[in-house]
Amino acid sequence: MGTTRIQLDAALDSRRLPEMETLLDGRQQKKIAGRDDWSIRMGHFWSGLSAGVELIELCNGPLSIYILPTRGMGIWQARYEDLQVGWNSPIKQPVHPQFVDLKGRNGLGWLDGFNELLCRCGLASNGPPGHDEGASSPLESDLTLHGRIANLPASDVELFADDESQTVGVSGVVDECTLFGPQLRMKSTVTSKIGSSSFLIRDEITNIGCDSTELQLLYHTNVGKPFLEEGAVVECAADRVIPRDNRAAEGIRSHGKCLGPTAGFAEQVYYYHLLADANGETQTLLKNKAGNHGISLKFKTVQLPCFAVWKCTQDERAGYVAGLEPATNYPNFKTFERHHGRVINLAAGATYTSELQIEIHPDAESVAQASAQIRKLQGTCQQQINPQPTAPFCPID
Amino acid sequence: MGTTRIQLDAALDSRRLPEMETLLDGRQQKKIAGRDDWSIRMGHFWSGLSAGVELIELCNGPLSIYILPTRGMGIWQARYEDLQVGWNSPIKQPVHPQFVDLKGRNGLGWLDGFNELLCRCGLASNGPPGHDEGASSPLESDLTLHGRIANLPASDVELFADDESQTVGVSGVVDECTLFGPQLRMKSTVTSKIGSSSFLIRDEITNIGCDSTELQLLYHTNVGKPFLEEGAVVECAADRVIPRDNRAAEGIRSHGKCLGPTAGFAEQVYYYHLLADANGETQTLLKNKAGNHGISLKFKTVQLPCFAVWKCTQDERAGYVAGLEPATNYPNFKTFERHHGRVINLAAGATYTSELQIEIHPDAESVAQASAQIRKLQGTCQQQINPQPTAPFCPID
Amino acid sequence: MGTTRIQLDAALDSRRLPEMETLLDGRQQKKIAGRDDWSIRMGHFWSGLSAGVELIELCNGPLSIYILPTRGMGIWQARYEDLQVGWNSPIKQPVHPQFVDLKGRNGLGWLDGFNELLCRCGLASNGPPGHDEGASSPLESDLTLHGRIANLPASDVELFADDESQTVGVSGVVDECTLFGPQLRMKSTVTSKIGSSSFLIRDEITNIGCDSTELQLLYHTNVGKPFLEEGAVVECAADRVIPRDNRAAEGIRSHGKCLGPTAGFAEQVYYYHLLADANGETQTLLKNKAGNHGISLKFKTVQLPCFAVWKCTQDERAGYVAGLEPATNYPNFKTFERHHGRVINLAAGATYTSELQIEIHPDAESVAQASAQIRKLQGTCQQQINPQPTAPFCPID
Repeated sequence: MGTTRIQLDAALDSRRLPEMETLLDGRQQKKIAGRDDWSIRMGHFWSGLSAGVELIELCNGPLSIYILPTRGMGIWQARYEDLQVGWNSPIKQPVHPQFVDLKGRNGLGWLDGFNELLCRCGLASNGPPGHDEGASSPLESDLTLHGRIANLPASDVELFADDESQTVGVSGVVDECTLFGPQLRMKSTVTSKIGSSSFLIRDEITNIGCDSTELQLLYHTNVGKPFLEEGAVVECAADRVIPRDNRAAEGIRSHGKCLGPTAGFAEQVYYYHLLADANGETQTLLKNKAGNHGISLKFKTVQLPCFAVWKCTQDERAGYVAGLEPATNYPNFKTFERHHGRVINLAAGATYTSELQIEIHPDAESVAQASAQIRKLQGTCQQQINPQPTAPFCPID
Repeated sequence: MGTTRIQLDAALDSRRLPEMETLLDGRQQKKIAGRDDWSIRMGHFWSGLSAGVELIELCNGPLSIYILPTRGMGIWQARYEDLQVGWNSPIKQPVHPQFVDLKGRNGLGWLDGFNELLCRCGLASNGPPGHDEGASSPLESDLTLHGRIANLPASDVELFADDESQTVGVSGVVDECTLFGPQLRMKSTVTSKIGSSSFLIRDEITNIGCDSTELQLLYHTNVGKPFLEEGAVVECAADRVIPRDNRAAEGIRSHGKCLGPTAGFAEQVYYYHLLADANGETQTLLKNKAGNHGISLKFKTVQLPCFAVWKCTQDERAGYVAGLEPATNYPNFKTFERHHGRVINLAAGATYTSELQIEIHPDAESVAQASAQIRKLQGTCQQQINPQPTAPFCPID
Repeated sequence: MGTTRIQLDAALDSRRLPEMETLLDGRQQKKIAGRDDWSIRMGHFWSGLSAGVELIELCNGPLSIYILPTRGMGIWQARYEDLQVGWNSPIKQPVHPQFVDLKGRNGLGWLDGFNELLCRCGLASNGPPGHDEGASSPLESDLTLHGRIANLPASDVELFADDESQTVGVSGVVDECTLFGPQLRMKSTVTSKIGSSSFLIRDEITNIGCDSTELQLLYHTNVGKPFLEEGAVVECAADRVIPRDNRAAEGIRSHGKCLGPTAGFAEQVYYYHLLADANGETQTLLKNKAGNHGISLKFKTVQLPCFAVWKCTQDERAGYVAGLEPATNYPNFKTFERHHGRVINLAAGATYTSELQIEIHPDAESVAQASAQIRKLQGTCQQQINPQPTAPFCPID
């Protein structure tokens, strides 16, 4: 009974014992702890662009979650029974940050390492690259796509299993700090109840500096087949829908509908202003056409007030994917977001907490329940659909 | 009989067994497989700029080839019996890509890691750094010297020995991919016949994306002493010779002759339009003054239509070296090469294959044979020697 | 008797033996050699931003020195009995160079890895980032803050203990080399007498190229509590004191006095022209208010003719620190320093040697001795204190 805590240093040490090692799927792995109904394994990739990337498998029984401490505690993919949850990026394996030059490719180098189910964009900034005129110093004005956090490794990784709450979990600490600049520390904890089809990400981001500092956080949550397909639907309770740009405006009438893999498709992004229940909670869903596979995100709009949907239904070889992106801001350039009051000022010593629960819906009944919950949130509220990019949500083309 | 295939993961696993380990030349090495007449060893460097660099020694008996999976399957050096094949760069050891900032030094950071016998320049671009106005997106327009491939690590490394063909070999896969940009995958295979003085590099570069993409590939093949020396000669069968720039024009009369180490010597580069035999094959040779040491390159002009000679006969401490550079293009800025139709458009799913055979000529007889073969290729064709830089080969100063 | 030399490759090999391993403070460590009165340990960090950083502990009995081969032979911190020597940077652990992008943050990315007691700035350049118009090539004109040396790893690390001289030591070689550019090799040796409260850093920087090349070297020596506190004093023998800029001019009257941690304090830097004794030696001291804790630096002004004091007495969370910075130049932009003749031209093959002795003064008597020595150096010479930035020491605002 009680909680079993496993310090990763001890775990790493024991990794040396040859009898505990197995080679599985090209990764060096071992079972650190477990019973019949759960397990925690860890390993690391050793070759190519993945060399040195640590991987933790949190298995609650039917659900396995693959966490990447080396990539800012991102979540590479998940699997619920036979259902693979993630997408097929043209970047095949997790990429070690040493091979991602954020400054490269005109500040778009972040794209060289992007293939996760869940990838954080932040912490000092997210959105497109460029020179942020409103930054408080040269240390902060040189923005690269989606910031640094996804390419910073975690320390103090801890694995745990708690008999009382019947959960397995992992936590890690990622520092995005510099002298004379932002000093943000994220403690990220991923937990999952044994036997469940969901997991919870709880991020506590603390300004460990002595001055207030800016914070932007976006959860780039990305799925492909079998959730995304022709006729797949994004559902969320919202009173406003806005196309990000003219390209998105072209498809505003079908903003919630997804195409199948489409050669030459250029991405479309829609911004939503969500509705929440009395507890401030909201839910968004992506379900397949038949409505028997779905993935939903639950979060509080007070923590993550902005929501974007990224439709990138291009050819499968190019990366067929849709993104559900709850965030503290819309993914516009930081200067624009600051101007519209959507950049957080985190006081010295203060902690910003956000929780995001991701649930896999493996059958029609479970999908229908999530849909019903979203309809209930929408209630009688009419969705205002803006046909064109609209301030203050996005720059007007 | 038949082929022995060794998966590198198994090999790496067994590397842990202390009884199989030896320390040799400051590298952690072990013999993976071998017989009396051949062997394959691998190891990795652990300190300084080389920390983490994998090294594979392919030994066919008299000839050893040292391959760097971590540096894009480049070939660090070779040795034929007592003859060292390579050059003495001021960068002494193989440099791990983590220590090469391609964007650094005004886009010339590639030079911080350059010391191989054979270093590929490509795949999306090669040539000098700058902003490529003709690029299809910002992801592709931010060019750094000679591109990315030499600083990307290989995965899926496989070692093999084939009894039937009497060859030893190694292959590896290098991905130069990004989301929304080029998605090029190179499978490089190096093989050598047991007992021979040559090895074959076969590169298959596949566009794994769904749109056509640009490809540039140059084999920067570099040798110093004892092949290069005062009076050393470059031989090739060509109908045109063009100096790259005014500096090269100064030496056009002796384009095929090499100086000894010369303090203050500024590099000279000559472009050749080569002649091939009925099978499309050509051969180029660098031989020493006495004509008893040589290294030759055999390739097909349909695969590698451009050939450049890099004379960098500076002081030995600075790096006394000459380069033979078969390529898909001349090493001008990519925009210029595209304008002149020398950038390949590789269709989605298509594979570009190039083969390059490198032979060491350890004695006068072997050198004379190669010379004779080149004279035969030249036949009665007169070489047109352009005294000045000439379009469309190179920009006119 | 005699010297015990330990090649690090052998040491690393034996690290594999599990019985010799202990886990201490989250680091994998082992005692390589030692007796009752001294020891040398080494280990490496394995997680977060420190993954792969090697750490060597040189213990002479009362004094332990922690050296970072991976960070250019920098000295992370020291400890004399119970006295911690260093500072609390907002960057908590040694940062592996793979996570420091010098080009990032508008060329200020160096700050992402800065937390050492002693961090070298150099070798081809130090000072602020920018385009150096006087550089001899594009390879050298693209300057990032404080140069490359602190983020280049050492090779050929050797540990030694010498019975005759009763010293323990470590040496390593750091190459800052590129083709067609500077080729500087630093051999750094740290030694300490058994039982003493001081250690000596001896750096031999050789131009291994064939042309003369520029050299800049600054020892960023940084301390916080308990040496630095409100009322702490910097003492040095100097005939000139110059504030670096208008901000420093504001505090020129108390240039030698330090504040306690002060919210919002903007750094102040003072330049000194030092006086030396007949042997060319000088000494500078930082002592706490009570005068019972001090740290002093001894060096020759012929080797390190410039001295800067960095007062960065900001809030403790932001990094409360003062720096004593002996150097070959003042930390202005390289173009300015060259113009004023303070950039070294190191001839081909020549070696620049500098020695810096750092002493911990753990009690009032020892502090008083250092103070007396500095007063003796000052003698009757009057300090000329410039109230404003003054050429040729610094640009005039």
